[in-house]
Amino acid sequence: MPVPPTKSHGRLAISASAKPREVMSDTPRLKGAWCAKVVTLFPELFPGVLGASLTGKALQRGLWALEPIDLRIFGTGKHRQVDDTPAGGGAGLVMKPDVVGRALSMAATGAPDDPARWPRVYLSPRGKPFTQAHAQRFAQAEGMTLLCGRFEGVDERVIEAFGLEEVSLGDFVLTGGEIAAQAMIDATVRLIPGVLGNAASTEDESFAAGLLEHPQYTQPREWQGRAVPEVLLSGNHGEIAKWRRAQAERLTRERRPDLWAAHLARKDE
Amino acid sequence: MPVPPTKSHGRLAISASAKPREVMSDTPRLKGAWCAKVVTLFPELFPGVLGASLTGKALQRGLWALEPIDLRIFGTGKHRQVDDTPAGGGAGLVMKPDVVGRALSMAATGAPDDPARWPRVYLSPRGKPFTQAHAQRFAQAEGMTLLCGRFEGVDERVIEAFGLEEVSLGDFVLTGGEIAAQAMIDATVRLIPGVLGNAASTEDESFAAGLLEHPQYTQPREWQGRAVPEVLLSGNHGEIAKWRRAQAERLTRERRPDLWAAHLARKDE
Repeated sequence: MPVPPTKSHGRLAISASAKPREVMSDTPRLKGAWCAKVVTLFPELFPGVLGASLTGKALQRGLWALEPIDLRIFGTGKHRQVDDTPAGGGAGLVMKPDVVGRALSMAATGAPDDPARWPRVYLSPRGKPFTQAHAQRFAQAEGMTLLCGRFEGVDERVIEAFGLEEVSLGDFVLTGGEIAAQAMIDATVRLIPGVLGNAASTEDESFAAGLLEHPQYTQPREWQGRAVPEVLLSGNHGEIAKWRRAQAERLTRERRPDLWAAHLARKDE
Repeated sequence: MPVPPTKSHGRLAISASAKPREVMSDTPRLKGAWCAKVVTLFPELFPGVLGASLTGKALQRGLWALEPIDLRIFGTGKHRQVDDTPAGGGAGLVMKPDVVGRALSMAATGAPDDPARWPRVYLSPRGKPFTQAHAQRFAQAEGMTLLCGRFEGVDERVIEAFGLEEVSLGDFVLTGGEIAAQAMIDATVRLIPGVLGNAASTEDESFAAGLLEHPQYTQPREWQGRAVPEVLLSGNHGEIAKWRRAQAERLTRERRPDLWAAHLARKDE
């Protein structure tokens, strides 16, 4: 948990912004706080889910910051056009490279060029599937920029020009990248020190150890004829740990042969 | 596109609800419309992202319906407690089976028992990874119930008692199931007829054909020294289709050896 500063000046970060600076903000941004810049046609959808619960409390405390960047203001012409028909024909619309490029240039203001310090991600079903390892890497950075696609995606040239890393939430198609951005930010922010009240709880959860998590039980001891397994009520911590480990291994073996194989390979090393 | 009914009576669906019936609703629910019931501690986060863009327009038109069910009102005692410490010890809190059971019983009102007609899903990192095949199956049903976990998860007995299908958004850990629920609902709703304006655009997107989508380009023809590939400007539809296919195959081979292997196996059949 960071120690609260004893003086109020010099605590807030400064950043270039297309919006007038808010004098009073209910989400102060602390210097050095991890920051997510989100380029989107729907800036009003942020923080959304991220404003609730633990991520929301951490946002209010300034443990991380969120900067939605409205793609529409970079559009061309009277109607702020952001998309056009695909070269070569086909259904749908493609986001224009000049428009997206201007938004990404704005996002680059104040962010380090080194992608290790500041990942630049395009949320795309063509990307590498997002995993806990991405979240861990993103949480180590100073912040990140997320480009949310819509329609048939973004002109390939802007992906190349900005060296965007394509990351996919999974093997399914979403209406836009906004939900994927929220999922990735949520998974990342909860790894930032101080965000979860109880640091221990990130340790034995699924994937941290390469195994699915064991089943959980709580009160009442009996519910609708179903009892909590006796071992969990035994008070024998060694036996409880052994049972949980065996259950985690069984679940992983049954449900995720891919994770199980990777787990066995690690054990053999 | 469904034909609008010519009379206004008999068009709205009726459903049991813990809430007083809204007389005026801005999201009319049409009889037979696909419905997502979401059991959550954060009902105010819905529709959230789902209220925007194409899914939001479809919700307003009544092409699908959303029924958040507030888990808190099923809690016990003065503080409506929903969780308790894990049996056997450990960090965090587990959602109580009696509380979750009451919420799921409420969700079952008016929903068919057959899981093919009405899937009941618990969003959990221990589940099978969500894919486009799930979205297609869910879209075929009459609706579905989604249980959003929080904390260290849900008491195992309630999963067994209600025969919940555990589905994971991917190999990463989220603060709660709400973002995962929104992702799955978004992926599903956009497959419902009439939701996407242009039905063709679900066809050549990533995963529909088992390949990643080819790169896209649009105006301007030249941007920052980068040109649209000549073939796309040729007007030769056969060549364009061939180029796109080759690009989709190259990307899949390079980025997703797993999808590529599955694609080759299908071709050999």
